Amino acid sequence: MDHNIVGKSVQRLDAVAKVTGKAKYTDDFFERDMLVGKVLRSPHAHARVVSVDLSRARALPGVVAVFTAQDLPKIKFATAGHPWSLDPGHRDVEDRLILTDKARFVGDAVAAVVAEDLLTAEKALHLIGIEYEVLPHVLTAEDALKEGAPLLHENRPGNIVSSFGVQFGDVEAEFRGADHVIEGDYETSVVQHCHIESMSAFAYVDTDGRVVVNSSTQIPHIVRRIVAQALGLQWGRVKVVKPFVGGGFGNKQDVVVEPLTAAMTLAAGGRPVRYCMTREEVFIDTRTRHGMKLHMKTAVAADGTLRGIHVQVLSNTGAYASHGHSIAMSAGGKFRPLYDFRAVKYEPRTVYTNLPVAGAMRGYGTPQIFFALESHLDDIARRLDLDPVELRRKNLIKVGHQDPLTKNVVRSFGIPQCIEKGMELIKWDEKRKAHLGQTGPRRRGLGMALFAYASGTHPVALELAGARIVMNQDGSVALQVGATEIGQGSDTVFAQITAEVLGLPMDMVHVVTSQDTDITPYDSGAYASRQTFVTGIAVRKAALEVRDKVLEVAARRTGLAKDEMDIRDRRIVETALGRVVCTLEDVAMDAFYDRLLAAPITSDTSANVRINAMSYGATFVEVEVDVETGKVEVAELWNVHDSGTIINPRLAEGQVHGGVSMALGAALLEQMLFDPQTGKTLNNNLLDYKLPTILDTPKINAAFVETFEAAGSFGSKSLGECPVISPAPAVRNAVLDATGVAFHKIPLYPQVVFEKFREAGLLAQRSTEHV
Amino acid sequence: MDHNIVGKSVQRLDAVAKVTGKAKYTDDFFERDMLVGKVLRSPHAHARVVSVDLSRARALPGVVAVFTAQDLPKIKFATAGHPWSLDPGHRDVEDRLILTDKARFVGDAVAAVVAEDLLTAEKALHLIGIEYEVLPHVLTAEDALKEGAPLLHENRPGNIVSSFGVQFGDVEAEFRGADHVIEGDYETSVVQHCHIESMSAFAYVDTDGRVVVNSSTQIPHIVRRIVAQALGLQWGRVKVVKPFVGGGFGNKQDVVVEPLTAAMTLAAGGRPVRYCMTREEVFIDTRTRHGMKLHMKTAVAADGTLRGIHVQVLSNTGAYASHGHSIAMSAGGKFRPLYDFRAVKYEPRTVYTNLPVAGAMRGYGTPQIFFALESHLDDIARRLDLDPVELRRKNLIKVGHQDPLTKNVVRSFGIPQCIEKGMELIKWDEKRKAHLGQTGPRRRGLGMALFAYASGTHPVALELAGARIVMNQDGSVALQVGATEIGQGSDTVFAQITAEVLGLPMDMVHVVTSQDTDITPYDSGAYASRQTFVTGIAVRKAALEVRDKVLEVAARRTGLAKDEMDIRDRRIVETALGRVVCTLEDVAMDAFYDRLLAAPITSDTSANVRINAMSYGATFVEVEVDVETGKVEVAELWNVHDSGTIINPRLAEGQVHGGVSMALGAALLEQMLFDPQTGKTLNNNLLDYKLPTILDTPKINAAFVETFEAAGSFGSKSLGECPVISPAPAVRNAVLDATGVAFHKIPLYPQVVFEKFREAGLLAQRSTEHV
Repeated sequence: MDHNIVGKSVQRLDAVAKVTGKAKYTDDFFERDMLVGKVLRSPHAHARVVSVDLSRARALPGVVAVFTAQDLPKIKFATAGHPWSLDPGHRDVEDRLILTDKARFVGDAVAAVVAEDLLTAEKALHLIGIEYEVLPHVLTAEDALKEGAPLLHENRPGNIVSSFGVQFGDVEAEFRGADHVIEGDYETSVVQHCHIESMSAFAYVDTDGRVVVNSSTQIPHIVRRIVAQALGLQWGRVKVVKPFVGGGFGNKQDVVVEPLTAAMTLAAGGRPVRYCMTREEVFIDTRTRHGMKLHMKTAVAADGTLRGIHVQVLSNTGAYASHGHSIAMSAGGKFRPLYDFRAVKYEPRTVYTNLPVAGAMRGYGTPQIFFALESHLDDIARRLDLDPVELRRKNLIKVGHQDPLTKNVVRSFGIPQCIEKGMELIKWDEKRKAHLGQTGPRRRGLGMALFAYASGTHPVALELAGARIVMNQDGSVALQVGATEIGQGSDTVFAQITAEVLGLPMDMVHVVTSQDTDITPYDSGAYASRQTFVTGIAVRKAALEVRDKVLEVAARRTGLAKDEMDIRDRRIVETALGRVVCTLEDVAMDAFYDRLLAAPITSDTSANVRINAMSYGATFVEVEVDVETGKVEVAELWNVHDSGTIINPRLAEGQVHGGVSMALGAALLEQMLFDPQTGKTLNNNLLDYKLPTILDTPKINAAFVETFEAAGSFGSKSLGECPVISPAPAVRNAVLDATGVAFHKIPLYPQVVFEKFREAGLLAQRSTEHV
Repeated sequence: MDHNIVGKSVQRLDAVAKVTGKAKYTDDFFERDMLVGKVLRSPHAHARVVSVDLSRARALPGVVAVFTAQDLPKIKFATAGHPWSLDPGHRDVEDRLILTDKARFVGDAVAAVVAEDLLTAEKALHLIGIEYEVLPHVLTAEDALKEGAPLLHENRPGNIVSSFGVQFGDVEAEFRGADHVIEGDYETSVVQHCHIESMSAFAYVDTDGRVVVNSSTQIPHIVRRIVAQALGLQWGRVKVVKPFVGGGFGNKQDVVVEPLTAAMTLAAGGRPVRYCMTREEVFIDTRTRHGMKLHMKTAVAADGTLRGIHVQVLSNTGAYASHGHSIAMSAGGKFRPLYDFRAVKYEPRTVYTNLPVAGAMRGYGTPQIFFALESHLDDIARRLDLDPVELRRKNLIKVGHQDPLTKNVVRSFGIPQCIEKGMELIKWDEKRKAHLGQTGPRRRGLGMALFAYASGTHPVALELAGARIVMNQDGSVALQVGATEIGQGSDTVFAQITAEVLGLPMDMVHVVTSQDTDITPYDSGAYASRQTFVTGIAVRKAALEVRDKVLEVAARRTGLAKDEMDIRDRRIVETALGRVVCTLEDVAMDAFYDRLLAAPITSDTSANVRINAMSYGATFVEVEVDVETGKVEVAELWNVHDSGTIINPRLAEGQVHGGVSMALGAALLEQMLFDPQTGKTLNNNLLDYKLPTILDTPKINAAFVETFEAAGSFGSKSLGECPVISPAPAVRNAVLDATGVAFHKIPLYPQVVFEKFREAGLLAQRSTEHV
């Protein structure tokens, strides 16, 4: 289709605001006499608070309030950023208090101080007397599952958040009938989002007695609900405002600081209180990516056809459920609309331990499961001496595939083209030949991996989005969405959709980038790569309603029927003749000022999107492995995506750059380290936690295969999380290709790589030579 | 009708915000590095700017910008707060530049400075070199009309803004056929609004390059248009925000500071600039109430029937047109739906002079014309020896009266009851008897006067209002209106209407009290006493739409038809049985979370109100006149109003207190004084301008006659401006009653009263005694 603005790399709307430093984030807003909140954290991984003495802290001049769990409502609540469900069985696990009376990890929040300044608040923390009864703790899922293991939550026997799984077909029958049954174990580490902007909020009680929370969040409407639930307030008595946000990656799809910040202002008589975490606090008391252990067992026919798969997952969720089992479950649904298994048995267990809390992070479990599966497929190919690309090609689903469990139908499927394009771009065949027979200390290898990802959460959760458009007198419009711009560029995409439908240039679409739950259309927010797809449908619907009203006024002016006209470049055109009949401004002015029929043109609408579209893609990577040092370097990398129509290629490319960089960090460098004795996080800062810097990051290449997805706005599908899924297994497979050594755990940082190479005998000879 | 919330004196929504000082006015907002704007004003009443030297001012450290008319677009614009008209003949007079190159009054703005602080800005003003060519000036309308008078505006010969008038019937024939033809001359002085909050705005260019103006205004959507027009911008490139406003009284129904403040930020590269007038500047360079001279000539039958009236008005509008002739015209339309004249000839002339600019002020010309008319009627009664009350009663219109010019139909007319109630409350007959034969130095007298006023501007201008309601999950709602709360209590009234329709308690209706032209429904703002009537219709429409959607969801839940149910006290009730079928919260939760049918309940609507309702009322007053000092004291005063259904009696009473106090100021104390030689304002401050303090203000009594106006929300009509109209003539008539001396000009301050008493011989004898 021919578009004017959709498909064009228009500049992102917030570019100037951000590069000039004028974009205002939560911490850039201030109220007169704003107070500061700080939190006292448990030094123990597991300990009951036995007694509390707040008297000395309260007596410190400049301290306004000091409180613990005893002073707060005893309401357990869930923090995960999901829409509420009318079905109690479908709700998140309610296992948290705003402050805890039993510490479940080193850093668990047990008391809070509100003071006139930061220094006073920090001093007051030292004056709080807490007596603990220290309890035994567990740090691994295996230990937590053991008989007699210390119990984190009284109502969760065996420390199991959930062991709910799914299956279809008869996997045991497939194993019995298979030519080969191949098994493998894979493991991923705990990593952190490392968004640039900290977790930050400020709150106050307004003059109507309502609690107002300004927060760096992906999900303002959900924050509103959860703050109200946690404090036992009517939901309408809470207002949440989201200004510019400096990255979230799922960490801000959880309600972490807001209920506490609200409690702080209530404790301070409604005065404004800011609570902004330090980086160290972000590492230990926000969320992490679940470390998972995955066992894969696959039935394969002699010709390489994949028959059945049994996946067992042990997911370590830390001290509180947060998104809990949803992540393991969600991850298990993504490979099914990619590979055409006859039988799947998916058995995840999500387990509590005394570690920092795991939650949502870009990819939502899929980086873990695709690391396992795509590694496993290469292991199978190697075992059966099949070409890994051919193995995958043979087993792909086809357009029209319907998932037997979700009932989602695949309407667009660009994987074959992604594979073809990726191979071409990286010169797969040529390089494979060139790599044959390498023996030196630096060896090159090629790897690839596929992925599939959804566009939103349907049918697991509700996908409701809202958009409101107000047309001004000059024909320009303001667009309000409840979906949140958190750096990913969604506002720009929504503006493009609006401009395309309404025949406007981009600078005539003003997006209200801040959300205010009082007046912003309801939308559950930024997660599940849902916004372009789900909210895009609502935005397009709103724009079409406005278009219809514009043409109605134009029909009144001209006598032509609505469907004989179109809006093109701010003009109303009689379609058949291509003749301009009036300007859009004429119509807008009529709508505002016609003495008889004035009615400003607006649309305030919502879309309940009950369809899901799978996005696809592949990573093709060439690595250079230094056998002597264990250093793995990415020599060339292509991420090829089928995300349907690309609304804005430059923004899409940016998403790929960010996602791949994040994936390479997890593949090669990043992991949170915990003291095995105490459970204390050892590297809760950006010096010790090895986030790749720009110097560590190779050139990342993005390519797109544009299918047309009938369900999406202008044919679009999800992209946001997609790039983070397949790089790690592709790198791992490339190392396997280069060295013959199969790694089963990420990250592949030099120390483990080196040791494994030595174990595999790759180094034995040379290292003695060097001694 | 039986209402739960309409008709109740619920506490105003902003009461706590205002008494605790938490309500934020324009000056309470600040941006980092905010600059300060100041204005250089002409010392001459009429002078052409011949040359400008800005170099010294620009060189002063801390000065960011200095500019004059030469640096700004040469676009003449109109400042009056009216909706735009598609008909060029119906637009306000475009006679202004943002800064002038020809000063037309002492204080006219010729240059502006933007600096880092106030002191620097003020210093810079002194460094600006302006050379003037001083021109002859005129200060009175009579002088301005003289042959050869200096011309203020080149394209307005004779200094006449307009002399357009109206008539019906044959007034000359009525004079010829009348038993009596009685004439009189009346005059009112120039007064000022004296709102507590100054005129204040701040502006900046946002990161999208749009001009944002935050302003203490009654009319944010109109300010947006006029700022754009004055600067030659697309209207959608301007955004106006209105926070809490500390009074306007019509002065802020004019676009006074905003275009200049916008020009200041543009001159300063988009940095935020605040421009806040001093009280002295408010007096000279905002707006005043037109001083008018009115000649009345009336044909009266022997029995007291008023046959025809010829009214000639000379309205001094000062240096620029502002609302110009609209005010004289509007005033002339209000007495026709009160007294049943067979013929009316209304001949107003609005004239430019070299005085500060007159514009809209509470009553919009009616205080002037009713001062003249109601004084004139008492003069007629005295001449014909008729009872002044009986004279009025005899000549009232009746329900169903249609104005021959506007075609407005009177559907509710409570004047007969107002008269009856007022006489009863003040004990009219009893006191009249008691006053007979007074001779001492302190004499009492009774006076009364009637008035009529409209509800909005239909059919003269467009009456478009918008309202948006968003229902939260708990059934509470947020209400957005483009109509502005400026202290009069409109937000509370809109909340009451919403709560009444939706069966909610008041604390479940949150009114977004601030307007933001990007997202606030379009409404022309606070003026013409239009909001309860016009915007109330839009609010009720929005609430009814929400109610309909609520009942639709309830029908889905219950199987009952929509019209079998009602919302009562947060519950859905099966009307016939009075049985609760579910809660409103159940419905709202379904609307947000039903997996199939979720669609949040909102309404975003507008109403083009093409009907007008006349409000009526009377003042009954008893004065005590000190013949020796000329001091007139109000001993007892009742304002009795027919404003249809009173939505909130306590707020209505507050409006009456404020309006009557303002009227008594104009009747007895207030006038702006100008040096007859130079045109300089002599009393531009609250020390020298005699605004009544609380010690000068008598007890003001309000009473209401509640008619039901079919056109209004719940039967309501206008009230805001009404109380300011009839007190002055009632006081004047009471003085006449007490002393036999007829005054023809207000204010009746001791000096003029004393002199007139001496002239009338009342004092002659006593004063010689005292010498």
